[in-house]
Amino acid sequence: MALPLAVIVSGSGSNLQSIIDKIEQGVLDVDIRLVLSNNPEAYGLERARTHGIDVWTKSHKEFPTREGFDEAMIEAIHRHGADTVALAGFMRLLTPVFLSTFQGRVLNIHPALLPSFPGTHGQRDAARYGVKISGCSVHFVDEIMDHGPVIIQAAVPAAPGESADDLAARILVQEHRIFPQALQWFAQGRLKVEGRHVHLAGYGDYDAQTVDGALINPPLEKGF
Amino acid sequence: MALPLAVIVSGSGSNLQSIIDKIEQGVLDVDIRLVLSNNPEAYGLERARTHGIDVWTKSHKEFPTREGFDEAMIEAIHRHGADTVALAGFMRLLTPVFLSTFQGRVLNIHPALLPSFPGTHGQRDAARYGVKISGCSVHFVDEIMDHGPVIIQAAVPAAPGESADDLAARILVQEHRIFPQALQWFAQGRLKVEGRHVHLAGYGDYDAQTVDGALINPPLEKGF
Repeated sequence: MALPLAVIVSGSGSNLQSIIDKIEQGVLDVDIRLVLSNNPEAYGLERARTHGIDVWTKSHKEFPTREGFDEAMIEAIHRHGADTVALAGFMRLLTPVFLSTFQGRVLNIHPALLPSFPGTHGQRDAARYGVKISGCSVHFVDEIMDHGPVIIQAAVPAAPGESADDLAARILVQEHRIFPQALQWFAQGRLKVEGRHVHLAGYGDYDAQTVDGALINPPLEKGF
Repeated sequence: MALPLAVIVSGSGSNLQSIIDKIEQGVLDVDIRLVLSNNPEAYGLERARTHGIDVWTKSHKEFPTREGFDEAMIEAIHRHGADTVALAGFMRLLTPVFLSTFQGRVLNIHPALLPSFPGTHGQRDAARYGVKISGCSVHFVDEIMDHGPVIIQAAVPAAPGESADDLAARILVQEHRIFPQALQWFAQGRLKVEGRHVHLAGYGDYDAQTVDGALINPPLEKGF
């Protein structure tokens, strides 16, 4: 059975689109039951509707507490039968009530090589710092922002003085590859977490992959 | 004229060896005038002697203050006619008196993708964190540890649960490539620092390099 997934977005939802695309291409064994957003104007909701996916949206400002907002999301996710959550550009910290409900089943994509540049401006902070290599990370979510065990990372070059937007575009290409791949490994039950280490079943001693100028580890499988 | 360089080591000095090797191969236009160490037992001193390079060693414990130790190193470096300093595994923080004397002319190699994992245990900290990609960085030294503008970085894969030693060995292969390359660019006068950004003259819009499973940016030139 396909993994019943909820996806939470705050903005354009291009990572949601990459998940939808991989499902439609038949390589990602996931059923998106619901797309949620705290921003009724998020373009990600429009992408979901276009593909016939149910949406849920409420402004967090309607809720007196963070927990209240999270409980409303939990209720909607349960009602749609999803048991796993992908954060695709969701810009708010989840509360313990949410994380304990979906213990070990919330995945996030972050546009930096964690633990470098956590927070809401990963690409901008990297561009300002002047790193020569940045990238993106998919990780399990814990109660510290951008901190949980890392599943896969991709590294890309950064040029001195380039704009945050240029760097962000180069990173985004890799986000669209590694997030669906990580979800597929999770859907297949192949990710095993031991402390901070995420092991991937079915791989031997693997070599990382270099593709289009990026370094990706673990390497992508066919179709991603 | 070859760049008159002093190299400071604390331990085995394998990065010193990679610099010596590139000089002897005729690709690195540097003259090592002196190798210094705060550890009279450092094997790096033996490597220097083997190649006929002058050495200077005093235990920092002989000096009542950090500044006193640094002033003794400055005197020795000046006496040997060096104007640039490479830190090849030097495990102590330099004082402002040292850094202002060699303003913008002190380069360090660090075994992590800065700003991730600064400090004396870059490889071990990365292995414990469970990153999928780590690496090494050459940077100009400023008064904050492992913080100055980044010249070149190399990214390598890290496997879940692997030992710090295994990861360190993979990183070290790349250290031996990027540190001599950075020194050669500096010797050629091709590095221009603007704020935190290090520009490399004579490169156009460059693509990063992938070699032996590593991503290196900027790419190495022939011979490195």
